[in-house]
Amino acid sequence: MGLPFDLLLAALREAALLESSAAILAWDQETMMPPGAVAHRADQLEQIAQLAHSLRTAPRVRELLAAAADDPRIAGDPHSPQARSLTEIRRRQERVDRLPADLVGRLAHATSLAQHHWAQARTAGDFAAFAPWLERIVALQREKAACLGASPGGEPWDALAEENEPGLTAAGFAAIFARLQPGLLALRDRIAASRVRPAPIDGRFPIAAQEAFVRFVAAQLGFDFERGRLDRSVHPFCGGSHPGDVRITTRYREQDLLDGLGSTMHEVGHGLYEQGLPEAAFGAPAGEAASLGMHESQSRLWENQVGRSAAFWRWAAPHARRHFPDAAEQLSESRLWHAANLVAPGPIRVDADEVHYDLHVAIRFELERALLRGDLPVAELPAAWNARTADLLGIAIANDRDGCLQDVHWSAGLFGYFPTYTLGNLYASQFWSAARAAIPDLGARIEAGRFAPLLGWLREHVHRHGHVDPAAEICRRATGSAADPAIRLRDLEQRLAPVYGL
Amino acid sequence: MGLPFDLLLAALREAALLESSAAILAWDQETMMPPGAVAHRADQLEQIAQLAHSLRTAPRVRELLAAAADDPRIAGDPHSPQARSLTEIRRRQERVDRLPADLVGRLAHATSLAQHHWAQARTAGDFAAFAPWLERIVALQREKAACLGASPGGEPWDALAEENEPGLTAAGFAAIFARLQPGLLALRDRIAASRVRPAPIDGRFPIAAQEAFVRFVAAQLGFDFERGRLDRSVHPFCGGSHPGDVRITTRYREQDLLDGLGSTMHEVGHGLYEQGLPEAAFGAPAGEAASLGMHESQSRLWENQVGRSAAFWRWAAPHARRHFPDAAEQLSESRLWHAANLVAPGPIRVDADEVHYDLHVAIRFELERALLRGDLPVAELPAAWNARTADLLGIAIANDRDGCLQDVHWSAGLFGYFPTYTLGNLYASQFWSAARAAIPDLGARIEAGRFAPLLGWLREHVHRHGHVDPAAEICRRATGSAADPAIRLRDLEQRLAPVYGL
Repeated sequence: MGLPFDLLLAALREAALLESSAAILAWDQETMMPPGAVAHRADQLEQIAQLAHSLRTAPRVRELLAAAADDPRIAGDPHSPQARSLTEIRRRQERVDRLPADLVGRLAHATSLAQHHWAQARTAGDFAAFAPWLERIVALQREKAACLGASPGGEPWDALAEENEPGLTAAGFAAIFARLQPGLLALRDRIAASRVRPAPIDGRFPIAAQEAFVRFVAAQLGFDFERGRLDRSVHPFCGGSHPGDVRITTRYREQDLLDGLGSTMHEVGHGLYEQGLPEAAFGAPAGEAASLGMHESQSRLWENQVGRSAAFWRWAAPHARRHFPDAAEQLSESRLWHAANLVAPGPIRVDADEVHYDLHVAIRFELERALLRGDLPVAELPAAWNARTADLLGIAIANDRDGCLQDVHWSAGLFGYFPTYTLGNLYASQFWSAARAAIPDLGARIEAGRFAPLLGWLREHVHRHGHVDPAAEICRRATGSAADPAIRLRDLEQRLAPVYGL
Repeated sequence: MGLPFDLLLAALREAALLESSAAILAWDQETMMPPGAVAHRADQLEQIAQLAHSLRTAPRVRELLAAAADDPRIAGDPHSPQARSLTEIRRRQERVDRLPADLVGRLAHATSLAQHHWAQARTAGDFAAFAPWLERIVALQREKAACLGASPGGEPWDALAEENEPGLTAAGFAAIFARLQPGLLALRDRIAASRVRPAPIDGRFPIAAQEAFVRFVAAQLGFDFERGRLDRSVHPFCGGSHPGDVRITTRYREQDLLDGLGSTMHEVGHGLYEQGLPEAAFGAPAGEAASLGMHESQSRLWENQVGRSAAFWRWAAPHARRHFPDAAEQLSESRLWHAANLVAPGPIRVDADEVHYDLHVAIRFELERALLRGDLPVAELPAAWNARTADLLGIAIANDRDGCLQDVHWSAGLFGYFPTYTLGNLYASQFWSAARAAIPDLGARIEAGRFAPLLGWLREHVHRHGHVDPAAEICRRATGSAADPAIRLRDLEQRLAPVYGL
């Protein structure tokens, strides 16, 4: 026997344990699973999702939740970690309780299959083949949003985004983006007017050597390979089941050294966050990531603030030359640094530079909002996508593969998700500014390949806090303010001005 | 709504579906999982084992089981496939119902951890480090056997073997082995007296080239890589979740070409059986392997009857030379064929030739029987192992790594298991004889790299039948007799006499 709050955590841990098994199956699906297993895997994931849901919605959980309020640590101090955790548990429980187990199962089944059909449709550039799956997923998402109930005056998007970024609404994101967009466009125009044009790195970079190189970098950044893996997948991601079992993936293109490295550093950032969560609190808010925006701040900070800095390349360039002796003459520090900061519009979000990236997010945000409201029929998505891309990026999409089929997210049921990437960019800039202020010689340390001080700062100010408090609160405590587009724009300016001589 | 028997199958399918998720986690544990996940994985497997057990023992399953007897296909024809399947379902259900969920969970947890500790102890050759784990596993196995209840006059071993080979008892196996042993020893002595000594294949065979070679062979034999995978693990095994997701593993030693090939052909045999099971009957007896002995017959037939034949090497030798051009002068058909049939005593079971293999099994059979009866304390296992090895094989064991720590089985809770390997040898010889009689030009086809006729015969006479009937019945129908040591000895003689000029 224990105190009710401890018993509640034990019950939630059981559900999280089962979900962590599904997470391994989902990782396996993207990295290892043979095609013959597609249908069976959907059945497996549906079953586990339903069983986990039934663990989360068991009457005993509700009883423990009610009893936990009387736990002396909670009743005696509404600001204790236990009390704040209970607030988060309640928020989540209210949502879970509104979802029928049947819908949870259908969603898991449909998204497992739809990802497979999306991948095939994307390879073929055949939107019509994917459209019925997307229709099914959108219908399921609308059904889910209806169960969850929108906030007063809200819209379906809000109910779904709440899962990824508690508290984020469509109106709230639109307001953030309205403050961000003019600055991004102005910076874009100044860069376009600059006479500096970084040369891309050309050549052939054998995949085996790239793999050795990015593994070396990942380990140096602090990724613990005893408690995680790095594999390949079509779309890089961070999965796994536990802080001791963190699985990141990346991809390689033989002609593009920076793509594989950037993808890896991005996922390493996610992985470091996961490996830094308090293991003993597995399944409790104290052991969970605070939000997807917070997660993305960690990936972006390592990918961008670190990975596109001159200091990083002063350290990394010699290692790059060592791994790719045949291309050594191209791999000078300044050339790599400039190439890593190339700003140019393009159709693909994951290839986008830091100035254009959030514009890609905005396109998806508008379109998924319309899909969920029912204002945009799935059949009209490609045309709407291409029109918005032309508007915002000045780019013509020739093939849906480079357009509305490029991202896995919607097939995976991830709606109300893309804007967390922009939020992550904002948080990353704020953490970076705060870490630089706290570690005065940070640049010199990075240049010396000493990443531990930065990782230590992130562990101390972000990772170890889990989700006891909301992401915005963690950010405020660490940086002095909530998500702030002005800080983001200042950080971008500081990173790009030296490259483009602005 | 459906007929009770169909509803019963649907309920069993749910349990099998969940168990198939655990199977992927178990595969992952041996192939992919980072060490930091050891404890968490044990928790995951314990939880899924308990949940699956609760699905199998749900009152509804018992109700459906009772109602199924009235299903018209069963009541109307006691020999129908449905009626025979129901017999098998009942047999299994009686066992499942006797096991407390708590014990099932503790077994899954302990064996997941013990495998890890066994692997470490084996690497270090440190039996003392493994002994407490083995004690725990033996105690759990005895507890399990007590729950299951031995047959009248039986012993704990029987209750455990029933899970692997329905109907096999310790007394029954001892009787089979008593008929086999004199023939094996006589053959061993004749070979020792022969003047022929096949030369082993020497050299360095790069792992990447070995991998390409064995993948080529696996595909030629019929393994479908769209419905399966081949990876590496310390101990080769066949896992996976479903006929569309069959996962075999192998291992490579740079100096030993035949080891990696033999391991692969063995696991391919298991994999072909799994891929050949009726997919639509997943979770029902009709979709399951008949027994471990039957499974082993399939692996051994491809490894030994095919893989050690002159016909096979006439086909395979040119492919070997193509993959290992630096060693080509050693890779003649006759040299490879002879090397594949090298008979010599050694300490390691998985390296044993066909004559000595079953002697290794006998050592384990006697010792695990004694462990389970409580006649042999775990602490005395190494001495007992070494004494029996000296007796039966004439070999001195210098390090427990080459003795009682060599096999993963006991750490994985696999007791009453090794003798199914010998049963597999017997079945394999019988299937081989029957297939040769049915396909008169089988040798010529194998020599031409045409393995489909043999695979077709196995699909027809073994794979497609699942476990509707007991293994012995399937064997009898396909070959005219139950497991018969005399046929085994004749087959061995036929394979080895031409090599050794007997």
